[in-house]
Amino acid sequence: MRTIRKKCAVLADHPAFYNTIIILIILNAILVGLETYNYIAENYLNWIFIADRILLWIFTIEIVIRLIGSSSVKAFFKDPWSVFDFVIVLSGHLLVGSHYVMVLRILRVLRVLRAISIIPSLRKMVNALLLTIPSMGTIMLLLGIFFYIYGVIGTMLYQSIAPEYFGTLHQSLLTLFQVITLESWASGVMRPILAEDPSSWWYFVTFILIGAFVIVNLFVGVVVNNVEEANREDTPSPTDIKLAELQAELQEVKELLKEKK
Amino acid sequence: MRTIRKKCAVLADHPAFYNTIIILIILNAILVGLETYNYIAENYLNWIFIADRILLWIFTIEIVIRLIGSSSVKAFFKDPWSVFDFVIVLSGHLLVGSHYVMVLRILRVLRVLRAISIIPSLRKMVNALLLTIPSMGTIMLLLGIFFYIYGVIGTMLYQSIAPEYFGTLHQSLLTLFQVITLESWASGVMRPILAEDPSSWWYFVTFILIGAFVIVNLFVGVVVNNVEEANREDTPSPTDIKLAELQAELQEVKELLKEKK
Amino acid sequence: MRTIRKKCAVLADHPAFYNTIIILIILNAILVGLETYNYIAENYLNWIFIADRILLWIFTIEIVIRLIGSSSVKAFFKDPWSVFDFVIVLSGHLLVGSHYVMVLRILRVLRVLRAISIIPSLRKMVNALLLTIPSMGTIMLLLGIFFYIYGVIGTMLYQSIAPEYFGTLHQSLLTLFQVITLESWASGVMRPILAEDPSSWWYFVTFILIGAFVIVNLFVGVVVNNVEEANREDTPSPTDIKLAELQAELQEVKELLKEKK
Amino acid sequence: MRTIRKKCAVLADHPAFYNTIIILIILNAILVGLETYNYIAENYLNWIFIADRILLWIFTIEIVIRLIGSSSVKAFFKDPWSVFDFVIVLSGHLLVGSHYVMVLRILRVLRVLRAISIIPSLRKMVNALLLTIPSMGTIMLLLGIFFYIYGVIGTMLYQSIAPEYFGTLHQSLLTLFQVITLESWASGVMRPILAEDPSSWWYFVTFILIGAFVIVNLFVGVVVNNVEEANREDTPSPTDIKLAELQAELQEVKELLKEKK
Repeated sequence: MRTIRKKCAVLADHPAFYNTIIILIILNAILVGLETYNYIAENYLNWIFIADRILLWIFTIEIVIRLIGSSSVKAFFKDPWSVFDFVIVLSGHLLVGSHYVMVLRILRVLRVLRAISIIPSLRKMVNALLLTIPSMGTIMLLLGIFFYIYGVIGTMLYQSIAPEYFGTLHQSLLTLFQVITLESWASGVMRPILAEDPSSWWYFVTFILIGAFVIVNLFVGVVVNNVEEANREDTPSPTDIKLAELQAELQEVKELLKEKK
Repeated sequence: MRTIRKKCAVLADHPAFYNTIIILIILNAILVGLETYNYIAENYLNWIFIADRILLWIFTIEIVIRLIGSSSVKAFFKDPWSVFDFVIVLSGHLLVGSHYVMVLRILRVLRVLRAISIIPSLRKMVNALLLTIPSMGTIMLLLGIFFYIYGVIGTMLYQSIAPEYFGTLHQSLLTLFQVITLESWASGVMRPILAEDPSSWWYFVTFILIGAFVIVNLFVGVVVNNVEEANREDTPSPTDIKLAELQAELQEVKELLKEKK
Repeated sequence: MRTIRKKCAVLADHPAFYNTIIILIILNAILVGLETYNYIAENYLNWIFIADRILLWIFTIEIVIRLIGSSSVKAFFKDPWSVFDFVIVLSGHLLVGSHYVMVLRILRVLRVLRAISIIPSLRKMVNALLLTIPSMGTIMLLLGIFFYIYGVIGTMLYQSIAPEYFGTLHQSLLTLFQVITLESWASGVMRPILAEDPSSWWYFVTFILIGAFVIVNLFVGVVVNNVEEANREDTPSPTDIKLAELQAELQEVKELLKEKK
Repeated sequence: MRTIRKKCAVLADHPAFYNTIIILIILNAILVGLETYNYIAENYLNWIFIADRILLWIFTIEIVIRLIGSSSVKAFFKDPWSVFDFVIVLSGHLLVGSHYVMVLRILRVLRVLRAISIIPSLRKMVNALLLTIPSMGTIMLLLGIFFYIYGVIGTMLYQSIAPEYFGTLHQSLLTLFQVITLESWASGVMRPILAEDPSSWWYFVTFILIGAFVIVNLFVGVVVNNVEEANREDTPSPTDIKLAELQAELQEVKELLKEKK
């Protein structure tokens, strides 16, 4: 049993194993890409199906090898990326033969995401990106309240004037998301409403000013945080190296003095 | 009297009190959200009205408790957030029964803003955001002059060509706000004018270039300010810790020398 | 003669003088604003004309006082803001009675710009903004070459397909400016061309990618420059204060040692 | 032979030589600009053709002189800018008389790019810009995977609803590029699809949120990198100068102590 575990661990760390998986993920990506072309999807349906089945089983074997090769089952599932790989592959098996063709196809596409869990530099970067999310918590809550209040007011005021944009609360929220990206906010959304309600400009202008102001500050906050952190994690600066030298010399002076006593 | 004050102060600081208010604000938010759906607004009008009245009275009691619990009336009104809470709740009472239904409804929505005054992290963040406004004073004045001059010139030149965009001075200012957000500035605003006045491009291009230039600099200024402040408020750096050590050692050397005297 | 110069210098520096000019500039701004409303412009033409003449003469007297009050004529014209004030006021006199009504009106609007030359904080900020222009020289030249090459290629390729966007070289340059602001670049400009020439996407995609890349770098460069400069001009940091203390103490040690000699 | 090489080297470094080439490149730029005007292109075709031939031969002589003047052929081709110049000029000769008129004309336009290889400040800046590309490698790969997955899913879901935007995988990728620039993403792309598939908003909203989030982080990363590098390459700070002084003084103290021994 132990030797199998060891062999699996060695295999899972082998560059050839790693590279094979990357190549298979790229193959999987090409396959789902080809499937979108109707001509190919219709004429080579069987081949794509078979290739897909083979890929799924190879990925299953890979996960099993990595699972056996890990120090314990618990250790394997502690890494969220392993859990992600496991879920992606497992759901491929569970949904086989089901009638949710679209779900199955989307699942096959999501397998391409495994490239992130396999390639270390991508994994590191995504981890770093995910780490910046909590620091945005408060400002996201603030933006949420801001959107909700403007959404409710917008629905109240412009429900009858522009039902396609402010008909219901969730339509209003979607419209406000469009407005905050500045897409057709004036030509498409505001001007037709302005024609009926000449005072409606304050709604849009204040929303954009406050929204942009808050988002710019959120952005600046993130930049400042990053610069600070980068400065802190710095390798010792020339100043620090010189200080260490000074300290050593002072030590010498102290010993010279003590000697003389 | 004193014991009532003390009891109120204790109550106002109690986590249960605080959490109850947050839950009620969320309830209030859900209520104003539901009200936007015509079906609900028509069929449950009475229920919503009653729930709203109850909420208003609970909020009133809350404010009264906090007012009594504070060290003095003056101290209570010194905090702008308390004034904000007080005004929001008071105006709910004053406008009751009035015919300005829309104003009343907007007031109910604005009560959701009380979440900011209740949740400390949000309050802190909004305070921080508001503090960055004065530092933008001069550049805002500059942008104002810039908008005004372009607004007057735009009205003078394109009043007859594009009355829907440059008909009056305030229409021009709104159009310029749209142009500075780059929304349909060319396809919607400039190209139809360009068809009549082939030299009008300089008006829009210089406006965008100067406006973008000033705004980018405003943005950069804010970033730089923040980075500097962040660096200044830093916890003592490793360099400073080392310097303190050096100073202590130098002190030792000095004492060694004095001893020998 | 001397006493007149002194009196003028004292007058020009007097807060009341300064405030009066600011009020008059604001009046001038209101006047040009009112003039854009057809109703007012037609009915009060004479009053506006008279007010404008009075303002022009007051500004002329102001400039003369400041000119006499300055140490020498040369010193007065050395300050570009004084030259700006002088030119704005002088051209008002030169063009009086001319038939270029529009030019005269624009000149009146530009008088509002004098607010910048009068209010010290605005003057300082505009000076600071103007100083950042030279540092953008090289990248502006690069952007110019980039625009020119894409402009010529665009005219060559799409002249016949989309004459309204790429008919002539200067039309192409204007279209490219629109594309770099991302305004209707796809829906308005690219998709109609794409319908005729399916390979035209590379032209737009590469233009946006390279353009955005260069501009982002330009922006980053400006930010970095500013942060650096801000750090350099810093007031002495706590680290430096501590270092000065250390130096003083070391001096003491040295003197102690010398004494003993 | 040697004297020729020396003469060429001297000539290639001469300011007059350098300025002549710049003037000729500007002439070349004006020529390709004029060629885009149909009237000129038709009436002065011969003159343009002759001028172009002359310019090509002068540029050829220039390259030959620089080639002879360089220490060795290998040294000349080691500099990528020399290779660029060589290829641009050589291809002008190779394609002469060919029927690919458009290719020839584009080649003539690209000769304007030689301004970058000739003007040192532009060359330095482009080199600096190109150096920042590798640092974006990982995040570009991440963006690529992100685009590919959304592209395949978009094609699968909206192929039949919006064939002009999501008909094939490469159309989808182009549409997603349009969406990430926020151009008509709602008014042009999403709303028509939303009318048929009311749940399609999640596709666009998540794409924009994730895309903007990743790109902002990419941008922040580049800014932080640059600020750090700038801080590192700094000229010695006042802190470091003071530290050097301290070290010198401490040295003196040590020597004083040693003397006394």
